[in-house]
Amino acid sequence: MVSGAIVDLDGTVYRGDDLIPGAAAGVDALREHGCGVCFFSNNPTKDGAAYVERLRELGVDAREGEACSAGVATTRYLADHHPDDPVLLVGDEGLAEQLRAADVRLTDDPAEASVLLGSWTNDFDYYDMLAAMDAVEEDTVFLGSDPDRAVPHDDGRLIPGSGAIVGALARTVGREPDRILGKPSDVARDLALERLGLTAADAADCLVVGDRLDTDLLLGERAGMTTVLVLSGVTDRTDLADSDVEPDYVLENLGEVDTVLRDE
Amino acid sequence: MVSGAIVDLDGTVYRGDDLIPGAAAGVDALREHGCGVCFFSNNPTKDGAAYVERLRELGVDAREGEACSAGVATTRYLADHHPDDPVLLVGDEGLAEQLRAADVRLTDDPAEASVLLGSWTNDFDYYDMLAAMDAVEEDTVFLGSDPDRAVPHDDGRLIPGSGAIVGALARTVGREPDRILGKPSDVARDLALERLGLTAADAADCLVVGDRLDTDLLLGERAGMTTVLVLSGVTDRTDLADSDVEPDYVLENLGEVDTVLRDE
Repeated sequence: MVSGAIVDLDGTVYRGDDLIPGAAAGVDALREHGCGVCFFSNNPTKDGAAYVERLRELGVDAREGEACSAGVATTRYLADHHPDDPVLLVGDEGLAEQLRAADVRLTDDPAEASVLLGSWTNDFDYYDMLAAMDAVEEDTVFLGSDPDRAVPHDDGRLIPGSGAIVGALARTVGREPDRILGKPSDVARDLALERLGLTAADAADCLVVGDRLDTDLLLGERAGMTTVLVLSGVTDRTDLADSDVEPDYVLENLGEVDTVLRDE
Repeated sequence: MVSGAIVDLDGTVYRGDDLIPGAAAGVDALREHGCGVCFFSNNPTKDGAAYVERLRELGVDAREGEACSAGVATTRYLADHHPDDPVLLVGDEGLAEQLRAADVRLTDDPAEASVLLGSWTNDFDYYDMLAAMDAVEEDTVFLGSDPDRAVPHDDGRLIPGSGAIVGALARTVGREPDRILGKPSDVARDLALERLGLTAADAADCLVVGDRLDTDLLLGERAGMTTVLVLSGVTDRTDLADSDVEPDYVLENLGEVDTVLRDE
């Protein structure tokens, strides 16, 4: 019995500006099955409400509060663990807005920062690397919003994602981040379960559906969820053959999810 | 009997714009001992002639053809191994000039590039990462000019070096460089020996003097040279205690090199 589904967005429900064939029907099938839905994008620049709106525009039955993002996970983590710590953000204004709305303290002064947060921004440059080098001392907390190295641009082309920028900062300061939020982190997992009204004990009754082995599927595998890879995004069967992550199901697209629901 | 010395520059002979006390006398002592001198900077942006001029201005006895740099090593490697291959350089105009002077073919078009060369530039930005992502296919050669992560700026402050930018590119394209030129590479070692009129068989009669364990000293250790660490640059005794590289001699500065010459 499946009671909740964590559904990835880019590459699973849409690709760039286009709905993936079958995706809207797949969401309907989840609902008909009585299954809760949490849409979860690893894009850090927008909050959940923005995704609900986008999904509705594309004709997908998405409801208020059902969408999450790496931005939401990152903001939650900082608000919970670093409510008063000055954060140097190397990232997009869209993430800065989410952080400010949660009263996270942002600073432009490397000397003042006690947290360095790396994320996606196409404004990234050498002076961000310099600021990171100036900011990071032994006790500075170093975080990343999400691990995605390459992400699809609206035109379908792959462009450097947060993972590339967090990696650039890591190579600059000479150490890896202490924690990366977004999928597949525990923070993302717990946030998704909470949105579904479930707890870690319910993970076995959860599906995770996505196109990325190292984020969507890894989150599900670690949590003991039923994992469903869709081939409508960045992963093909060759990538799958090379991967340590082994999905429980492999579907062409989300439209085929009813076969999983009948099976589980 | 010491017949040649590879002498690092920044942190060994000068620091920013200032000559390090004892450095000019140290160079004189090497010459009085009949020892050839090759000055070698891991800065990729200038060629050897620029360093001879700078050393003379600081009052150091430097002679034509005696100085090398990571720029010289990188240019030599590309001219030898990729004379006709279009090179996408993410680096400084100073390195581009050296490459052009050696008839290396530079391109701004990622689709055309068969070599990606990463190096230091304070113009580095997101669009360089994007170009690297577009350029790098399975058979693209990926090179770095030198591995230095943090380098001293003229004001003494540490700033991100080529190593940080090459690392940023590596994290963007998802693989490490095939080869990094400059010290401690074999290309740098052979270039220095050649300047000294020596061969690999003479390495045991060579000193390498520098302030960096992972570049200067590692080059010497690998080649079987006598290794001399000076504490006038980025390395202190705490760093030394944590290092796998074990110098044969540790000096406060190059001015003390006569003690090594008397000993060897």
